[in-house]
Amino acid sequence: MENERMQTLIESVLALLEEKKYAKAREALLENGNEADIAEVLEEVIDELDLDRAIVLFRTLPKSISAEVFSYLPSDDQVAIINGITDREIRHIIDELSFDDMIDVLEELPANIVDKILSRSTKEERKIVNTFLNYPEGCAGSLMTIDYIELSKEMTIAEAMAHIKEVGMDSETVYTCYVKDKGRKLQGIVSLRTLVVSPDGDTVEQYMHEDMVYVNVLDDQEDVSNTFKKYGFLAMPVVDNEKRLVGIITVDDILDVIEEENTEDFERMAGVLDDSDSEYLDMSVWRHVKNRLPWLFVLMLSYVVTGGIIASFETVLSKVISLVAYMPMLMGTGGNSGSQSATLVIRGMAMEEIDLADVGRVLWKELRIGIIIGAVLSVLNFARICWFDGEGPLVALAVSSAMVVIVIAAKTIGSMLPMAAKKVGIDPALMASPMISSLTDMVSVVTYFAMATAILGI
Amino acid sequence: MENERMQTLIESVLALLEEKKYAKAREALLENGNEADIAEVLEEVIDELDLDRAIVLFRTLPKSISAEVFSYLPSDDQVAIINGITDREIRHIIDELSFDDMIDVLEELPANIVDKILSRSTKEERKIVNTFLNYPEGCAGSLMTIDYIELSKEMTIAEAMAHIKEVGMDSETVYTCYVKDKGRKLQGIVSLRTLVVSPDGDTVEQYMHEDMVYVNVLDDQEDVSNTFKKYGFLAMPVVDNEKRLVGIITVDDILDVIEEENTEDFERMAGVLDDSDSEYLDMSVWRHVKNRLPWLFVLMLSYVVTGGIIASFETVLSKVISLVAYMPMLMGTGGNSGSQSATLVIRGMAMEEIDLADVGRVLWKELRIGIIIGAVLSVLNFARICWFDGEGPLVALAVSSAMVVIVIAAKTIGSMLPMAAKKVGIDPALMASPMISSLTDMVSVVTYFAMATAILGI
Repeated sequence: MENERMQTLIESVLALLEEKKYAKAREALLENGNEADIAEVLEEVIDELDLDRAIVLFRTLPKSISAEVFSYLPSDDQVAIINGITDREIRHIIDELSFDDMIDVLEELPANIVDKILSRSTKEERKIVNTFLNYPEGCAGSLMTIDYIELSKEMTIAEAMAHIKEVGMDSETVYTCYVKDKGRKLQGIVSLRTLVVSPDGDTVEQYMHEDMVYVNVLDDQEDVSNTFKKYGFLAMPVVDNEKRLVGIITVDDILDVIEEENTEDFERMAGVLDDSDSEYLDMSVWRHVKNRLPWLFVLMLSYVVTGGIIASFETVLSKVISLVAYMPMLMGTGGNSGSQSATLVIRGMAMEEIDLADVGRVLWKELRIGIIIGAVLSVLNFARICWFDGEGPLVALAVSSAMVVIVIAAKTIGSMLPMAAKKVGIDPALMASPMISSLTDMVSVVTYFAMATAILGI
Repeated sequence: MENERMQTLIESVLALLEEKKYAKAREALLENGNEADIAEVLEEVIDELDLDRAIVLFRTLPKSISAEVFSYLPSDDQVAIINGITDREIRHIIDELSFDDMIDVLEELPANIVDKILSRSTKEERKIVNTFLNYPEGCAGSLMTIDYIELSKEMTIAEAMAHIKEVGMDSETVYTCYVKDKGRKLQGIVSLRTLVVSPDGDTVEQYMHEDMVYVNVLDDQEDVSNTFKKYGFLAMPVVDNEKRLVGIITVDDILDVIEEENTEDFERMAGVLDDSDSEYLDMSVWRHVKNRLPWLFVLMLSYVVTGGIIASFETVLSKVISLVAYMPMLMGTGGNSGSQSATLVIRGMAMEEIDLADVGRVLWKELRIGIIIGAVLSVLNFARICWFDGEGPLVALAVSSAMVVIVIAAKTIGSMLPMAAKKVGIDPALMASPMISSLTDMVSVVTYFAMATAILGI
C-alpha cells in the first residue's frame, strides 16, 4: 500500500519532468510526500532520467525543507547535487542540517569544496568540524553528534524543563539529557520521560542515573551497535579517555550501521570486496569488475593446486574412468557442508553468541554433526551407485567412504577457520563459502583418490 | 573495556556459584551490573553451570528488577526459568513486564501455562492478550505494544503535559503521542519534543502531524523495519484496515527484527533451514543435523545429473585424460562468479535498492561484467596452460574458451535466478551460493566438454 503510493508519486513526477513541467512536479511532491519521500523521488529522477533535472527540481523546493530532503539522499547523490548548486545554496543546506548529518556530508565532499564551505564559518566552528572530520571512519566518533541537551545536577525539574524549552533541539537528540561536572566529565544521564513525570520542585540529581552505559569515541561502530542492541537505548553518550563527554550517538544512526555491517559481511562472504557505501545499480561495470576479480583470481590459483593433485592421479583415473563422474558430487557436497558450518559460526560470532573460548564446544558439536550427516549421505550414495548406476561395490565403497571423511573434514575446516581468522585479527567473514569451498575441494580430491587407490588396489 | 568489565563480573559470579555462595553472587550482581548485565550473567550461568543455580540466583533478585532482568533473557531461557519458579512469581513478572515483552513471553510458553497465568486476569485483559497471541508471527501485530499515550486534539499543551505526567508510562513508548477521533481512527501524531518546546496555551491540534506514516497490523515485519530505516523514526503507529489505531511499534524492537531477518538470510544463503530464534551453541546436534541435511541432500541430487553428464563424455575423457585436471577450476570459478552476482542482487533486493523492474539493467550490467572478467581469466589461463603446464594449445584453447562462456553464464544465472524467485514469491535468499553453484556446475561441465569435443576434434 505504502509502496504503491510511492510508485504512483514517482511515476507522475517522472512523467511531468519528461515534459519539463517543473512547477507541477514540485506541487505533486509537496502535496503527496514528506521529506523522506521527496528524497526517494529525487533519487529515482537521477537514476531514471538525468541529474540536471533532479538539480533543477531540488532547487525549486522550499528552503524550509530542502536541507532535510538533502539529508535523506544517498551520499553519492548528495555530492552530485552539491556540485550543481551555488555556494550560497550549499551554505544554507549545511547550516540547516543537524550536526551529525552535516559531518556525514562534509566527509564525502572533496577537500577544496569543504574548505570553501567552512571559510565562512567562525574559527571555533571550523575547529569542531575538523576534529570530527578526523575521526577514523567506522568509529564511534564518526557517528556522534554534538547536538545534545546539557543540564546541571543542581537544576530543579522545572528549571530543566524550561531550559529544554529554551534551547529547543531537533529530532531524537532531546530525549536523553546529560549532566557534566566542571571538568566536562560525564556525571549522569536523565531521560526526558523522567523529567516530564517528576515533581517540578525536585532536583535533577535526585533522578539522574550515574551508572550509565557509555562508549569511547574510538570504539568500533560494530561494538557500539552491539551495545545498542543489548540495552535497547535511544541514545548513548560518547566519552574520551578521560571520561569527558564529547558527543552522543542516537539509535537512528545505528540502524544504518547495522545494515552497513551486515552488507559488508554478505559481500565478504561471497568473495566480493566490500563497497557498502554504494548501491549495486549506481556502480559502474568497471567498479564491479574491480570488486569481484581479485578474489576470483586468488581462488582460481587454489585450483591450480587441486588440478595438480588430479594430474598426479591421472594413471589411476585412466584405469577407472568412471571415478571422474563422482568427483563433482564429492567436491560440491564438501563445499556445501563446509559453508553451512562457516556461515553459522561467522554469524554466531558477529551476534556475540559464540566467542573464541567456545572453540572446543564448537569443534565437538561440528564433529558429531559431520559424522551423522556424513554417514547418512554415504549410505544413500552406496545404495545409489550399486543399484542405480550399476557400478561395482568397490567403486561405491570408495565414493561413500570418501564422503564420510570429506563431510567431517569440511565441517571441521568450515567451523574452525573463521575462529582462527578472528584469533589472528582477520575478519571471519572472509573465511566463508568461496574460500572454504576451494579448501574443501582440495581435501575432497585428495581423500577421494587416496581412498579409490587403496580400495580398488590400483 | 566494556567487554572486560562483563567478563570479570561473569567469572566472579560463576566462581561464587560453584561454591553455592548465592548471597555474595547476588551482591556482586547488584553492585556491578544493571538489568541487562544481570541477564547476560544469568545466561552464562545456565550455559556454563546449570539451570538450577541460575533459578535460585534469579529468585534472590529484588522484586523491583526481576521482571526487567527476565525481559532481557533469550526466550528459551525464559521458558526454562518460568518452569522453575512458582505461579505467584510468574504472575509478578507478567504484571511488571511491558505489554509487548509480556506478549513475547506468553507466545513462547506452552498453552496450559498461559491459561494458568491468565486465569487470574480480568476478562477484558484476557481478550486483549488473546487477540495479540493470534497475530501471525512476523507481522506488525506481533511486534506492537498497546502502551502508548493517547491525547485529544482539543487539549492544550499544558493539559497534554499534565496528562502524560499522570499516566506515566515506561520506556520509549512515551516519546510519540497519538490522537484518535471518536471512532478510534488515527487522526494525528505529536512528539513529546514538540509538546515540551511549544507554548502552554496552544492546542495539540496546532502541532500534530496529520500526514503521518503508519503500518497495517498484518504488514510483514521486514516491510515495517524498512519503513523505520527509511524514516529514522523512534516509534510508528499500527492501524487496522479501517485505519483504527491498534498499537505502536518502537525502534528498539526493530533492532531485533533487523538482526533476525539478516540471520534468516545468512542461513538460507548457506543452505541451512532457518531457525533464527535459537543460538548456535544452545541447539542440539540433532537439531543442527535436521536443519542442514535437507539442502545437502537436495543439492547432492543435482550432482547425480552433473555426474551423468560427465559419464556421457567418458570416451572423450579417456582419450585426453588431462582435461579432468581443469574441471574443478572451471566449476569452482563458475560457482564463485555466480555466487558473487547472486549475493549482490539478493542483498540489493533486501535493501530495496533493486526491484523487479530493474531486471533489464541488472542483466545488462552482469553481462558486461561477465564478459570482462571471463576474458581476463581466460587469457591468464591460456598462458598458464601453454607455458606452465606444457599442454598443447588446443587443450588451452578448450579450457579458456569454456572459461569465458562459463563466467558469463554463471553471472547471468546468479543474477537472474534470485529475481525470478522473487517474482514467483519464493525468498530470493534461497537462490544463493549452494543452489547457484550446483546449477553452474552443470553448465560448466556441459560447456567444457562440448568445447573440448569441438576444439580437439574427438
